[in-house]
Amino acid sequence: MGNFKEDIVKTKAFIFDVDGVMTNGGITPIEGGTDFLRTYNAKDGYAIAYAIRRGYKVCVISGGHGNLLQSRLTRLGVTKMYLNCMDKISAMKEFFEEYDVDPATTIYMGDDIPDLECMEQVGIPVCPADACSEVVEASRYISEFNGGAGAVRDVVEQVLRSQDEWAKDRRGVLGIASR
Amino acid sequence: MGNFKEDIVKTKAFIFDVDGVMTNGGITPIEGGTDFLRTYNAKDGYAIAYAIRRGYKVCVISGGHGNLLQSRLTRLGVTKMYLNCMDKISAMKEFFEEYDVDPATTIYMGDDIPDLECMEQVGIPVCPADACSEVVEASRYISEFNGGAGAVRDVVEQVLRSQDEWAKDRRGVLGIASR
Amino acid sequence: MGNFKEDIVKTKAFIFDVDGVMTNGGITPIEGGTDFLRTYNAKDGYAIAYAIRRGYKVCVISGGHGNLLQSRLTRLGVTKMYLNCMDKISAMKEFFEEYDVDPATTIYMGDDIPDLECMEQVGIPVCPADACSEVVEASRYISEFNGGAGAVRDVVEQVLRSQDEWAKDRRGVLGIASR
Amino acid sequence: MGNFKEDIVKTKAFIFDVDGVMTNGGITPIEGGTDFLRTYNAKDGYAIAYAIRRGYKVCVISGGHGNLLQSRLTRLGVTKMYLNCMDKISAMKEFFEEYDVDPATTIYMGDDIPDLECMEQVGIPVCPADACSEVVEASRYISEFNGGAGAVRDVVEQVLRSQDEWAKDRRGVLGIASR
Repeated sequence: MGNFKEDIVKTKAFIFDVDGVMTNGGITPIEGGTDFLRTYNAKDGYAIAYAIRRGYKVCVISGGHGNLLQSRLTRLGVTKMYLNCMDKISAMKEFFEEYDVDPATTIYMGDDIPDLECMEQVGIPVCPADACSEVVEASRYISEFNGGAGAVRDVVEQVLRSQDEWAKDRRGVLGIASR
Repeated sequence: MGNFKEDIVKTKAFIFDVDGVMTNGGITPIEGGTDFLRTYNAKDGYAIAYAIRRGYKVCVISGGHGNLLQSRLTRLGVTKMYLNCMDKISAMKEFFEEYDVDPATTIYMGDDIPDLECMEQVGIPVCPADACSEVVEASRYISEFNGGAGAVRDVVEQVLRSQDEWAKDRRGVLGIASR
Repeated sequence: MGNFKEDIVKTKAFIFDVDGVMTNGGITPIEGGTDFLRTYNAKDGYAIAYAIRRGYKVCVISGGHGNLLQSRLTRLGVTKMYLNCMDKISAMKEFFEEYDVDPATTIYMGDDIPDLECMEQVGIPVCPADACSEVVEASRYISEFNGGAGAVRDVVEQVLRSQDEWAKDRRGVLGIASR
Repeated sequence: MGNFKEDIVKTKAFIFDVDGVMTNGGITPIEGGTDFLRTYNAKDGYAIAYAIRRGYKVCVISGGHGNLLQSRLTRLGVTKMYLNCMDKISAMKEFFEEYDVDPATTIYMGDDIPDLECMEQVGIPVCPADACSEVVEASRYISEFNGGAGAVRDVVEQVLRSQDEWAKDRRGVLGIASR
C-alpha cells in the first residue's frame, strides 16, 4: 500500500454507496410506502456525470431501493448499479469482472458497517467525514466533507486532477439536474 | 443509580420518541392534511434494525401519527409502537409488562416536556444534544449528536459495544432503506 | 421602554411571521403550482400549542399562502391568522381590536423588511438570530436560535417562564405532530 | 477592473445560476421522474422580487429544468430565464442584446464549472461561499453565505444599497411565498 496521492493516479473506477455517501443519510418515506425521498448534491452529480463522460467507470452498490433512486442513477449515466443489495461483496466482484476493473486501483466510498467487507477488498477505500468509526478506521482517505455535502465530489475531483483530467471540458453535463 | 457506562451493560430494551429524537424535529405537512413528511437518519435506522436482529427490544412512543410514520417503524422491525399517544406513561408501563422488560435497565430517549414523566420512571433516561432544558436536566447521558443526526445511533452503539454485541454481523439490514 | 425581561411579564399575546420565523426560510414548490412544502419545528409547535392551552393569544401574519400552511396553523390552534397578507399593519390592528390585545405588551417576531412596520408598533419586537439586518436593529430581543430552529420556542418559553406558566402541564399537546 | 464596491454602483442586471446558488445544491427526485424538488430561500426570493419591482433586470441561466423550477421563477417575476441550458454563453449574450444590458456592469453568480465561461465575460462575477474552487478563483466577490442560505440576498442587497435603492418600499412582495 503506497501513498494515497500517488495511488489515485491509476484509478479508473469508483464504487459508491448511496445513503450517507451520495446523501446526508436522510431518508424521507412518502405515500405508497415503497419509496423514499433522498436529497442529492448537484456538485456531486456534476462530478459523477463528468467522470463518466471522460471514460471512468462508476458503480453504485446500495441496500437502498426504489424507482426514484434508480432513475437518478440512470440519468447520471452510472455504469453499473446494484440496488436492494444485501450481498455487496458479490456485487462488487461481478462489477470487477464484467467491466475488467482492477480492484487495486479502485476507489470505494462507504459510510457504514455493511460497506466494510467491500472496503477491505479494494485498494483505495475512502469515506465521508461523518462515516461511522469502523469505516473511518478502514479508510485510506477521509474526506473533509460529509455525505451529501461534497464527499463524492471531493474524491472524484482529486482523482481526475491527479490525472490532469479535471475541468478539461467546461460544458454542462446533461442529466445532473434536468430530465 | 450507578455509573452510566456500567449500567448500560444490562440494557436489553430501548424506548424512543420520534420527533426531535429519530428526526431533527422537522415536520413537513403534505397534501391531504393528515400526515407529515419526516426525515429519518439511515445510520440510526441501521442501528435500530441491527439491535432488533440481535434480540434487543425497541419500543417507540410518540404523539406523532400517520401511515408514513407507522410504515417506517414497521419496516425497521420495531418491537412495539404507540403512536398518536397522549398518555406516554401508560403506554410505557404496558410495554414493560407485555414484553417482560425491566424499567431499571431500560433506556428512554426523549427530547421535550411530554417525555419527562417516562424519563423519570426508567433507569437510564438519555437525550439528544438539542433536547429542551428540562429533558437535559432529567437525563443521565446527553449525546453529543442532535436528534435525527445520530443521537439514536450513538446510544444503541454504546449499549451494544458494552455488551460486545456491536458489529458482530456486518451484513446489511433489510428494511432500512428499501421496501 | 423598559427592560425586556421585566416587560415580558405582562405579555399575553404573540404575533409570528411564518417564513424565516416558524421555518428556516426554505420553501419548496410542489406539483400543482399553488403551494409550497415548508418544514416546521416540533419544539416550536409544542410551545405554540401549549401557550394557547394556557390562555395566551397567538396570531400569525404572513405573506405566505396555501392549504398546507393554513391547516398547519389550524391544527396548532392558532387564535387568528392572516395569510397571503400584503398589508400586515392593518391585519395586526384588527387582531388587537378583535381580541382586545394591548400592543404595548405584545411580542411580534419577524425576520424581514415586510415585518418592520408591525415591529415598530408593538412594545416587544423580537427576531431570530438570522433575521435581516434592519429587523435585527428594530428588535428588542434577538434569539440565539435561527428561524425554524427554535427561535419561536425560545421566546414563548421565556415569556411563560417569566409568568411561572411554563411546564406546568407536562401532557402532550394534540395537533403538534398528529392529525 | 476597478474596486468591487465602486463598480456595483452601476449594476442594473443580475444573472443567477439555480442549483448551488438559489439553492444549497440539494436536488430531490420525485415520482414521475422528470422533475426535482428544490428548496429556495424566502429572503433570496424577497430580494429578487424587490429588485425587479425597482426596475433591475434579473436573468436565470440553468442546466436545471422542470415545471416546478419554471413556475418558481415566473412567480418571482424573473425577467428572462434559460432552463435546460447546455450553452450558457449563448444564452447570456442573447439576454444582453435583447434587454440592452451592459456586460461590464452585470453581476453573474455561479457555483460550478459550467458557469465559468459566463463568469469570464461579465464585469462582476461573484459566487456563494461554497462554490467550487475554480469559481471562487474566477470571482471578484465571494459571499460569506452559502448557496440557498443567503448568497443571492447578499449581492442583491449590496448592489441596491450602493445605489440607495434598498428598503425604500417596505411592503411585501407578491409571489415570494404565495400563489
